[in-house]
Parts: sequence; C-alpha cells; structure tokens
Amino acid sequence: MAHRSGRHFLQIPGPTNVPDRVLRAIAQPTIDHRGPEFGLLGKEVLAGMKKVFQTSAGAVFIFPGSGTGCWEAALVNTLSPGDKVLMFDIGHFATLWRDVALRLGLQVEFVPGDWQSGVTPESVEARLREDSGHQIKAVAVVHNETSTGVTSRVGEIRKAIDRAAHPALFLVDTVSSLACMDYRHDEWGVDVCVAGSQKGLMLPPGLGFNAASPKALAAAKSAKLPRSYWDWAPMLRDNAGGYFPYTPSTNMLYGLREALSMLQEEGLPQVFARHARHAEATRRAAQAWGLPLGCRVPAEYSSSVTAVRVPEGLDADAVRKVALDRFDMSLGTGLGKLKGKVFRIGHLADFNDLTLLGTLAGVEMSLALAKVPHQQGGVAAAMQFLAGAAGSGK
Amino acid sequence: MAHRSGRHFLQIPGPTNVPDRVLRAIAQPTIDHRGPEFGLLGKEVLAGMKKVFQTSAGAVFIFPGSGTGCWEAALVNTLSPGDKVLMFDIGHFATLWRDVALRLGLQVEFVPGDWQSGVTPESVEARLREDSGHQIKAVAVVHNETSTGVTSRVGEIRKAIDRAAHPALFLVDTVSSLACMDYRHDEWGVDVCVAGSQKGLMLPPGLGFNAASPKALAAAKSAKLPRSYWDWAPMLRDNAGGYFPYTPSTNMLYGLREALSMLQEEGLPQVFARHARHAEATRRAAQAWGLPLGCRVPAEYSSSVTAVRVPEGLDADAVRKVALDRFDMSLGTGLGKLKGKVFRIGHLADFNDLTLLGTLAGVEMSLALAKVPHQQGGVAAAMQFLAGAAGSGK
Amino acid sequence: MAHRSGRHFLQIPGPTNVPDRVLRAIAQPTIDHRGPEFGLLGKEVLAGMKKVFQTSAGAVFIFPGSGTGCWEAALVNTLSPGDKVLMFDIGHFATLWRDVALRLGLQVEFVPGDWQSGVTPESVEARLREDSGHQIKAVAVVHNETSTGVTSRVGEIRKAIDRAAHPALFLVDTVSSLACMDYRHDEWGVDVCVAGSQKGLMLPPGLGFNAASPKALAAAKSAKLPRSYWDWAPMLRDNAGGYFPYTPSTNMLYGLREALSMLQEEGLPQVFARHARHAEATRRAAQAWGLPLGCRVPAEYSSSVTAVRVPEGLDADAVRKVALDRFDMSLGTGLGKLKGKVFRIGHLADFNDLTLLGTLAGVEMSLALAKVPHQQGGVAAAMQFLAGAAGSGK
Amino acid sequence: MAHRSGRHFLQIPGPTNVPDRVLRAIAQPTIDHRGPEFGLLGKEVLAGMKKVFQTSAGAVFIFPGSGTGCWEAALVNTLSPGDKVLMFDIGHFATLWRDVALRLGLQVEFVPGDWQSGVTPESVEARLREDSGHQIKAVAVVHNETSTGVTSRVGEIRKAIDRAAHPALFLVDTVSSLACMDYRHDEWGVDVCVAGSQKGLMLPPGLGFNAASPKALAAAKSAKLPRSYWDWAPMLRDNAGGYFPYTPSTNMLYGLREALSMLQEEGLPQVFARHARHAEATRRAAQAWGLPLGCRVPAEYSSSVTAVRVPEGLDADAVRKVALDRFDMSLGTGLGKLKGKVFRIGHLADFNDLTLLGTLAGVEMSLALAKVPHQQGGVAAAMQFLAGAAGSGK
Repeated sequence: MAHRSGRHFLQIPGPTNVPDRVLRAIAQPTIDHRGPEFGLLGKEVLAGMKKVFQTSAGAVFIFPGSGTGCWEAALVNTLSPGDKVLMFDIGHFATLWRDVALRLGLQVEFVPGDWQSGVTPESVEARLREDSGHQIKAVAVVHNETSTGVTSRVGEIRKAIDRAAHPALFLVDTVSSLACMDYRHDEWGVDVCVAGSQKGLMLPPGLGFNAASPKALAAAKSAKLPRSYWDWAPMLRDNAGGYFPYTPSTNMLYGLREALSMLQEEGLPQVFARHARHAEATRRAAQAWGLPLGCRVPAEYSSSVTAVRVPEGLDADAVRKVALDRFDMSLGTGLGKLKGKVFRIGHLADFNDLTLLGTLAGVEMSLALAKVPHQQGGVAAAMQFLAGAAGSGK
Repeated sequence: MAHRSGRHFLQIPGPTNVPDRVLRAIAQPTIDHRGPEFGLLGKEVLAGMKKVFQTSAGAVFIFPGSGTGCWEAALVNTLSPGDKVLMFDIGHFATLWRDVALRLGLQVEFVPGDWQSGVTPESVEARLREDSGHQIKAVAVVHNETSTGVTSRVGEIRKAIDRAAHPALFLVDTVSSLACMDYRHDEWGVDVCVAGSQKGLMLPPGLGFNAASPKALAAAKSAKLPRSYWDWAPMLRDNAGGYFPYTPSTNMLYGLREALSMLQEEGLPQVFARHARHAEATRRAAQAWGLPLGCRVPAEYSSSVTAVRVPEGLDADAVRKVALDRFDMSLGTGLGKLKGKVFRIGHLADFNDLTLLGTLAGVEMSLALAKVPHQQGGVAAAMQFLAGAAGSGK
Repeated sequence: MAHRSGRHFLQIPGPTNVPDRVLRAIAQPTIDHRGPEFGLLGKEVLAGMKKVFQTSAGAVFIFPGSGTGCWEAALVNTLSPGDKVLMFDIGHFATLWRDVALRLGLQVEFVPGDWQSGVTPESVEARLREDSGHQIKAVAVVHNETSTGVTSRVGEIRKAIDRAAHPALFLVDTVSSLACMDYRHDEWGVDVCVAGSQKGLMLPPGLGFNAASPKALAAAKSAKLPRSYWDWAPMLRDNAGGYFPYTPSTNMLYGLREALSMLQEEGLPQVFARHARHAEATRRAAQAWGLPLGCRVPAEYSSSVTAVRVPEGLDADAVRKVALDRFDMSLGTGLGKLKGKVFRIGHLADFNDLTLLGTLAGVEMSLALAKVPHQQGGVAAAMQFLAGAAGSGK
Repeated sequence: MAHRSGRHFLQIPGPTNVPDRVLRAIAQPTIDHRGPEFGLLGKEVLAGMKKVFQTSAGAVFIFPGSGTGCWEAALVNTLSPGDKVLMFDIGHFATLWRDVALRLGLQVEFVPGDWQSGVTPESVEARLREDSGHQIKAVAVVHNETSTGVTSRVGEIRKAIDRAAHPALFLVDTVSSLACMDYRHDEWGVDVCVAGSQKGLMLPPGLGFNAASPKALAAAKSAKLPRSYWDWAPMLRDNAGGYFPYTPSTNMLYGLREALSMLQEEGLPQVFARHARHAEATRRAAQAWGLPLGCRVPAEYSSSVTAVRVPEGLDADAVRKVALDRFDMSLGTGLGKLKGKVFRIGHLADFNDLTLLGTLAGVEMSLALAKVPHQQGGVAAAMQFLAGAAGSGK
C-alpha cells in the first residue's frame, strides 16, 4: 500500500483506534504463563474486568479468541442440545448470533424486527408469558447492535422477564457497548454477558469475554452441549490463582491491564458521558446534513456508533470509498440487508472532540464528493454542541 | 514484582522469547479488517504459512485462539459424534488432546506408552491392520511431545498407515515442532495439522493454526460434530480474499508477517539445523552432568526441548525455583505424571549459541545450588561442541 | 497529569506529531556504533539527507544535538573571531541566532525588520554593494521564521548576493522548512544550511544538521573560532565509512532512516504540495474568522506554520489555554515581542486533511470560548477548499 | 545485514543493552516542550539525576548531545582562554578530553601514564604543591577510563588537592562509571562532573550531563571561553520550571525517567554491588584463561569494563571478529595505542549473571577459534564465583 501522510482515521465501530499506551503494553516481552509474575497479571485483569462488567457476584472469563467465540461460549456452557432460545432479529450481529446457536444444535425462535429499533421489554414479556411450559431456556439480546446503532434496554428487559416470572437465562451481547455505555451485570440480572477486546476496551481484537452470574454458573453444571475450549469449568479452577487452563494471550493481557488502568483513571461514568456527548454531536451533524439515522427510537440511540442512511437509489459505500481514498478514513459499511443503504460512524473508545470533528468533516466532504444530496453544516452543528454548555462535559 | 536487572531467560518450551522485531510489528496500529490493506496482509500470511507447513495442496487456517483450540478445530471439522480416534499415551499434551476428543463426544482408543518414547510406526500399522472394519476414523499423533522432549516419526507413521491400507485421517500436532523441526505436510500425507503461534513461530500466544489436506477438506463436508467458531467452511470462503469471517487478531497477524519474513531470511533448512545443533549441545551438557534425558530413543530426540531427569527422591522443581529466584530464568516444569521428576529446557525459536550457553550455565549452577548430585562440565561440553567443527553450523 | 482520552493534537510548529513508524524505529535495540551494521546505517542516512537538502556537491553533517547547536556549528566552522555577519531582525529565531553569533565573538549587523515579512533580496543586494571592502564575511537568513510564519526567498537572495558580486558566505536556517517547503541547497548556492530533526523530518528533537557547500568546506580550513564538538573535520573523515568521531545518537538515526523512507515513498514534490495545501486551507480559515495573519506578504507565506493575530487588547495565550484545557490541543505561543499577540498553528510533517480540520475546529471553538471576536465558518472554508478541485492535491 | 537468530550480545563498554522498558518509554509520542506536562517531566529527571550524581548542593545539566559535548561544556563554562588544566595520560578517553581542551584554546599539562593504572593522589598532590602561583585552574580526571578498565580514586584525589590547599577546580569524567560504580559528587568535592546516557544510565546515546558544584557555578560567572550551546546560565534559568532554553530531546528524557525509576527500584547500592560482582567474575575468567588484565592495580579495577590483553604478536581484534561473526557478540576494540593489544568486555548497565556467562562463553570459544593460547575454564571459574557464597549478592 502506498504511504499516506498522517494518521489513518479508523472510524469503524471497532476495531477502534488503539491508544499507544496499549500498543506499547502489548509489545512487552512474553513471560512464562505458569510463573508467579503471570499469576499477578491474571488476577489483576480478572478483577479489573469485574469492575467493568459491574459484577461482584459473578465470574469473568477471558478467552484467547473473538467475541464470536464468546457467543459460542455463552451458549455451550449453559444449554443442552435442542434447547430453545428466544432471539430477536434486530440487526446483522443478532442474526449472526442466531446462526451460531443453530449450528450448535439449538432451537431458535427469532422474533422479527425492523433493524431500526431494539428489543422491546413488552415483546419479551408477552412471549415469555405465553411460554407457560418454560420451553424457552434462554433469552438472548444484543445490547448495542453494531450494524444499526440501536441499543436495547437491557435493564428494562430484565424487569419484563421478572414480570413474566420466567426462569429463562438472560444472555446479553455487549461487544460494542462495554466500556462505552453503562452496563450493569449484577443490577440488571444478566446471566451471561459476551464481550470482545477491540471496541470500548481499546485493545486490538484477540480476546473475548464472558461474565456469568451464579445462576449461569449453576446452569453450566448440567448443560450438555459438548464443549472443550470454551468450557468455563477449568477456567474457573485455574483463574483462582490468576492462571489459565491453556496458554493465554499473554501480550493481549498486558494490553488489557493497561486499558483497565486508563478506564479507571478516566472513571467509568466519565467514559460513558464522553461517549454520549460524541454520539449526540454526531447525530446533530447528521440532522444538519438532513440524513436520517439508522435508529428510529431516540431512547435507543447508541453511544458507540451512528448509522446514517443515504437516500434511496444511492450507494452508501460510495461515500465510504471517497472517505478512504481521499481522506484516509475508514467508515463502517452497511451489513447484511443494510448493504449500501447506510454507512456507520464509529465514535467510541480512545477518542476525543477534535478527532470526532475531523471525522465528521471527512464525512461531510465525502458526502459532497460522492454527490449525496445533503445540507452542509454538520460539522458546524457538532462544534456548536461540543463547545456549548450542553456539550462541555462539565 | 521487584525489578530485576537484565533480560529474563524464558527457557520454557514455549511461549518463547519473542524477538523485538515481532514485538514492534505487533505494536502497529490496528486497521480495518474489512479494508483493502487488510486483504493484502491476510493473503500474505496465509501464503507464508503454507510454506512453513510445506503444503501446496492443502489449505491453511488461522484462528484467534490457542493450539488447544486448534486441536478442537481438527476434530470438529473432520469427525462425527461417536467416531473412533486412535491416540497414543506418550505424554501430557497427548493426554490433553485425548481429553478434548472425549469432551467432544468422540470415542478414543488410547494406546499405552511410557512417556519416554514416541509413537512407533509398527504399533500404528498393527492396530490399523486389525481394524478391518475401518472403525477407526482418525489417527492422531503429537509430532513433538513438549512434556517429554520426544518426537514421533510422522513420515514413517504415514507409511505405516499406507501399508495397512487404512482410510483413517491422519491428524498431527506440531505445536512445538513447526518451524523448529522439519515438518512436511504434503509429502508426509498428513490430513490435519495443528499448530500455535508461541513456539517456533516466535510470536506471543494467541493464534492457532490448522493445515488441512484435500482429503480433510472433503471430510469436513460430511463431518457432523457441531461447530461454529472453528468451522473451516466460512474461513475458506473469506480467506480467498485475505479476509476472515469474524474479526481476526489483526495485530498478531502483523507479528506473524514479520516472523514469516524472519524465517524466510534465515531459511527453513537453516532454522532446522540451528535447532538440531542447540539440542545436541544441550544433550551433551546433560550427559556431562550425568543426568538422564526424558527421551530414551536417540532417533526421537526433540530439537525444541530437552527434558532432564533428576535422581529419584529429589524434586526437579527445586532446580527450577533456584533458576528463577537466583538467575531470573524460567525452565519448564514436569507435567502430569512427570511432575517433580523432570525439568525441561526450551531451546527453540529466536535463539543463539550464547543465550543457550547462558541457559546451560544457569542450569548447571542451579543444580549445584539445589544440591542435585551431578558432575560439573555441562557448559564446557556444550562449548566444546558449539565451537567445534561438528557444531559450527558451517 | 490526568489521563485524557484520544490523541493529543500537537499543533505547535515543531516538535511535530512523530509518526508511529518512526517511533517504532527509534525503539530498536542500540547497536555497536563501531560495527559493520552501523556503517551501513550511517552511510544510508547521510546519503538520504543529501537528497532532502537537494545537494550533491556539498557535505551533510548530523550532530547529536539540536538546531540551536547547528546554528553554532554553521558559525564556528566557517568564521573567525570578530568577523562580521549580516543578519536580519525578522523574528524570534532570527534574533536567537544573532545572539549565538554574538556570544561566540562575532560582530553582527542586524538589519531591522517588522516581524511580518521576510528578508528582501533588494536589501541584501544594497547592503552588500555598500560593503566594497568585503568586511561582511557571511549573510545569514532564516528560510522559514517559525515565530511569524514568514518565509524569505532564499533563491532570490542568492541572486542578489551574486548581483552584488560579494564573496560573503550564505548561511540559511531551514529548521522549520526542510522537508516541508522546497529548499535547493546546490541550486540556490547556499553555503551552510542548518536544520533539526523535529519538524519536517518527523523525528523527535535530538538531531541537528548542517549541509555545507564546497566553498564552506574550504572556509572551514582557515576559520579560527575555537571548535571541538561541532567541528566538521573529524566528522567528514569518519562519515566516509558511515561512522562518527564520537558516539552518535544511534536510535535517532534509526528514526531518521525510517523518516527518509517515508519522505521518499511520498516524494518530495508531493510533500511540498501537501504542506502548501494545508497552509492555504489554514489561511482560508483565518480569513473566514476575520483574523489577520502574522505574515503580511502573500509571496512569503509559510507552508509549515500560520501565525494568527488576535485583536489588540486580547491575549492570544487565552486561546491556547482553552485549546489545551478543553480540547487537548497544543498551539504555538507568541514568542518574543509577539507574546500574547499571536497564536501559531503548526500544519507540518506527518499530517493530513482530517487532522487539519480537527485542528481548525479546535481553534474555532477555542476562539469562541476565549471570547475572541471572530466570524464562524473557518472550518467550513477549509473544508470547501480541501474538498474542492483546487485543494484536491490531484 | 543478514538476519541472525536470537539477541545480539552488545558487550562493548557502551552503548549498552538498552532495556526494553526504556525503549518503549522512548517510543512515546513527543509532547510540547513548552507545555505543563513537559515541565513535570523536566523537573522529575533533573531531580532524579541529582540523586544519581549524589549531589544536593550542586546543579545538574542535561544536554541534547554526547558525553564528548559535555567535556566541552565542563571546560567552556568554567575556564578562560589560555587557562592551564592538569590532565593525565591514562588512556584513550583521557587523551581525547585533552584534545578538546587544546582545541578550545586551553593550555594542558598532560602528566604521563602507562595506560594500565589510574591517576594517583600522590602525583596530584605533588604537582599542585609545586604550583604555588596557582597557574593550574583545573584538575581533570577520568573516573573510569573506558579504554583500559582502570579507575582513578576520585575521593582520594580530592583529599590530595585539599592537602595541597590548591584552589583548582576539580573536573571528573564519569561517562562509564555513573550508575555503575559509586560516585559521590558532593562528598568527594567534585566541581564539574561529565556523563553520558549510553552507559550505566541504560539509555541510547544522545544525552550528555554535567553536575556542577556551587564553586563551579560561581566560576561560570567569570569564565571567558566563548560559549552558547553549552552555556549553563540559560539552562539554570529555564530548568527551574522544568524547561530548557532550546528544544530538548523529549523522547530521550522519557527514557531517562524510566531508567531512573529502574535504578531507584533496584537501589544504587545494589546496582554498584551487582557491577562489582560481574567484574570480579570476569576477572576470574580472565585469570583462568591465563590472560593478563589491562589494569595492573587491583584497587583500580573497573566494575564496568575489563580489558584483556592478548599475548605479544597476536591481534586482539581477531578475537573480536570471531566473536561477532560466529557468536553475534560485539566486544570493545583496543583504542589508540592499545589497538590490537587488548579486547574489552563490557559488563555494565542492564545485565545479569546468565548474560555475563553467555558473554564469557563467547569469549572463551572465540579465544579458541582465534587460536589465542589460553587455558580453558574461564566460564567455569565465573560460574563457581557467581554460584558461590561470595558471588551470591546476598
């Protein structure tokens, strides 16, 4: 590839721009994964991840792998062949998780959706109430659907499950929300949470995570899906000393330790507020451009990613191509049935106001160059917000 | 941990001392895994790995994960529930692979062994000839048993299978041999090979590999074990363009590209010869010490790792503790039933004569300090060999 | 210092944002500065710097030190105590160079200037014509005055010297112009050029450079100012083999090799055009804001840095403080007699359109927050230019 | 250069093996050298260096440059043209410092020496007593002569000066002793100390240091040698806030901060003891080889470097060539009149027992391959010492 001056703008909704503190941490020499120094590292990152998941009752698991692998881990540790899982067709990643479940031999009831809104607590409650025989063993929800920029209200869904007095396990994917938006594993009564390293955790891809409630850990004892690599049991045993049952991704764990320090230095509430500000600034830009958002429900706006729709008949990927060729910026493509209809702006992880404004400027110029009908003034609207009292973060 | 001056000697048989060229490569900024620059990277590392596996007919798979995961991948892609696999009790890792197979619902016939020698071609041939009904669907062999320092003669085992005219798939673990000892995937007719990043490939842990023959790829079409994360099919489809079906470990792939360059610069035959020299020097040291090797068959000596036995009644881990506390060197522990009976010296990957001699000096001093009865002169014997014509590498 | 999310915007006119390729290069292990590997490195960077200076006739010198040191080197190698040097009061750095000359025991004739324009060829010619006794031994000009954003027309000044048929040496400071703006050492007949690592060369500070014409090298033989560290003679002798007379900054030379590769990959003409575009975009922003530039002569606009004046009675440093506190961006302060009157925007070295727009957005918001009267629309004007045909760089 | 497996053994007496903690520190992004974050860095490293010099009364100066430059700084800040300096011909670097003094216009009285022993307090006292007219303005001594492996007893020389009741300034070069051997700036009454980054401070080359006593600072006020770059006065002024009068080597200062942390973690007394142990082990090896040391006075043995003499008629550089070609180890060459007569083993900075033993093994094998008559057993003797109670460091 030809050399390009300056830093690439990696504004896909993950992998995100890895801060150089983390990159340098990852470049430390690999150590003996069975030695005492490793044990300290392991304990530190496991404890740190519990804070990020906001769990004290549950256990956290760190796998060498991806979030995709941890979708599998969530299912194989808690379910048995033929078990029924309630899932929701709210976007591309929800669909992929469904596919994982099917491949593993689970039954999936896939509730239709419009890919512009999240899972409603009402629909969950209604469906579970119908299931008086408790055939549904798990309800699986994507907290932040990366393909659409839509969140689902996990805390309220928990209450819906409770209202239905249904014993199903509650599985949640926070791959692109963890460490970007508030996620409360214990308080919201989630049983298994799925996450990955390459989004709000500011790491390169290569680690996947589960957080499991005591109920999920109990379920693991009788779950019958075959499992080996993703099995929680040997993890739980060895993690007690900070170790892992097979060779862990030592260097990624160095990066994780550094990222956890950064999150702690900034403070999780500040991290969430920052993401919310940048998301609002991005939406104001989109509104100024006169382009509709991928999310049609304001209460479900994502703080990590904003999908922007281009007018019918135009190709959203043409905007992305200009952004990459002309401005060295990567934007997210439309996935699955949104192919060509939306582009996605990632505004998450290690990020700040001026990088956001550079990003939005790149989008605004690319819209012009790709001849997408729009109003100018998106950057100006975002600046107005960010410099104003509302956007000051004070 | 307290600061210790100088470089740690990481002389376990993996993870190995990652060269700083690789560490710097890993510290490059993460890029869009769906962009054109990534496609070039993906194609380059896939092509490079085919050379390392010495395969042109087969396909190579790179997973975010560990070698353990790729044991699972080898099985789930080629076998069906209840299939019988012929495995051999030659060491700790062979036993762990057996356990994976059992957890996945396979039947394992586990041929007894003494943990001091490898799988014999004769035993394979004899057992397969008995299996006239072709109940055995796969023969699984560890090329270099990391726990014992014993290799199995994979090429000859292939011939034994052929002599028995048995259709079983031939699965081989090269986790600690690949890029250390000659391994010829095509020529030796292996169907699935399993490898990891953290040994001869000089990377941190975090990537696992499979190489699959056309016969294995064909078997994958009818294999019925449930699989999702480890499924070759979507990999094969996306790898054609240099991409992956889920987020790959981009930064580890940077490191892999660099490591492949280094292997190519040195040349695989030179890499193998170097490992053989260092292994021979290590054995001469052990002989001078008067301590027996973990491997009792000279034709099966490992070039990656040497297990050294301490006299009955002494604890090999005491030697390791002195080496770590006093000389900042990590040695490999005895695993499974070798616990306390052997320590293991890793002499693989990014390594040279003087680091080997520092290592052997550390062992010799630790033997003295741990009061293990031995003769001095191990380092001297190794120096004699390395400086002499036989060890000159010329 | 508290952790701040995202990348700092280092928009002072140097040190500049060091690209991570260069940072990684600098992090390579230090080697023996007297060994064969070093000789290759030394020769490569010396040859590469000749291309950057656009000289083949002259010699290039690389010192562990700063540009300030190389001001001294330029003088002590070519002049004798009491020699007269013609210098020009065009800004803060010109004044500092004057001070160096005075401290070393030279006589300086310091031609007055307004710190808003460069050295005029006419004034040089007139003064030299008067000097029929050739008392003036050197004419010293700053190519790009970093404190004002004003360039002097070096090529035309050469012609002026020639018209006056004056034998004075021609000394030029290109600290903030080299590798940003066209500089032609041979063609423009410069005798000694002074440069530093931390501007267009994209390195951290720590290296200083001289380029010397054959006439300057000849002058060095009779120059009588005491010199040791900065002496060209032992450098010239040892540089022939790629070595240095005292320990060189090995790791910075690694970085230099990498930076030279990047400049070559992009191409010097492209590098100059890029800087010109970004400077023009910045001026359009300033014009939209209604704020005057520090440079009043369009033919003398700098491509590296733009000084922007704030209205009388306001403190330019208040803008800088907001930019730093609120947006994590460093802008250049007003130096010397421009203290508080201007702020300076660096737009040089490893840089691109979106980072410039983030920078300009930060300035525009900081102007508002610091209550500096201005028009909005600076960012919009820059986007208009950069996205338009004129600014396309095609 | 061809790729070589494993780490290079950089066993010259500096530059030394830079620890990767320091290399990573250096690779941090460059910041504004006039901003608040820099001020904290500057103050921290200046304070840290005072501890390393063991001075509280004096001032420390950090220059972008080399130790050679700081020889110059020591002289130009304290002396006037024609001043007489008493120097001692004890080795190559003492000679080079003499040359610097001569080039700067000082008179040097150069006391003859044998390059096998240090400056004796007796000779200093005798010469100063003779100088009743106090023509000698400074006494300049190299603490650890890197070319010979000989130290001079700085504390005792101070007492000799005092006994002679002579007002001369006392200048000391600790380039290769600082942070390796005990050096007490205040207690020993040194007026100006000279140091560099690339030895005991574990940094790449590129920084030079002075420590100055109140008496030296007073002398600077009347010293008349021309000076600009190396002038202490503006440094002293700006250092108060943590800043520098011209652009400092920011990234090297990051490295210095990290190196100071490492020294503090280990503890200076432990650092000195470690160097002493490794030097003793090296001497025992040389004794076993039957090769004489470059230093003939046991009380003056260096802890940083050991020069080893080869028998008359043999070329010491032949040993070095074998060590480099065959074992990838750099040893120090014989400098000046020791060319070909000695090779030098650096055993300083970030170093440990096993790396020393690898080094000595490389030397022992190179002696054999270069056919230098010697006894085997050097490594064995060093191991004996290091593993024994005397060498245990406990």
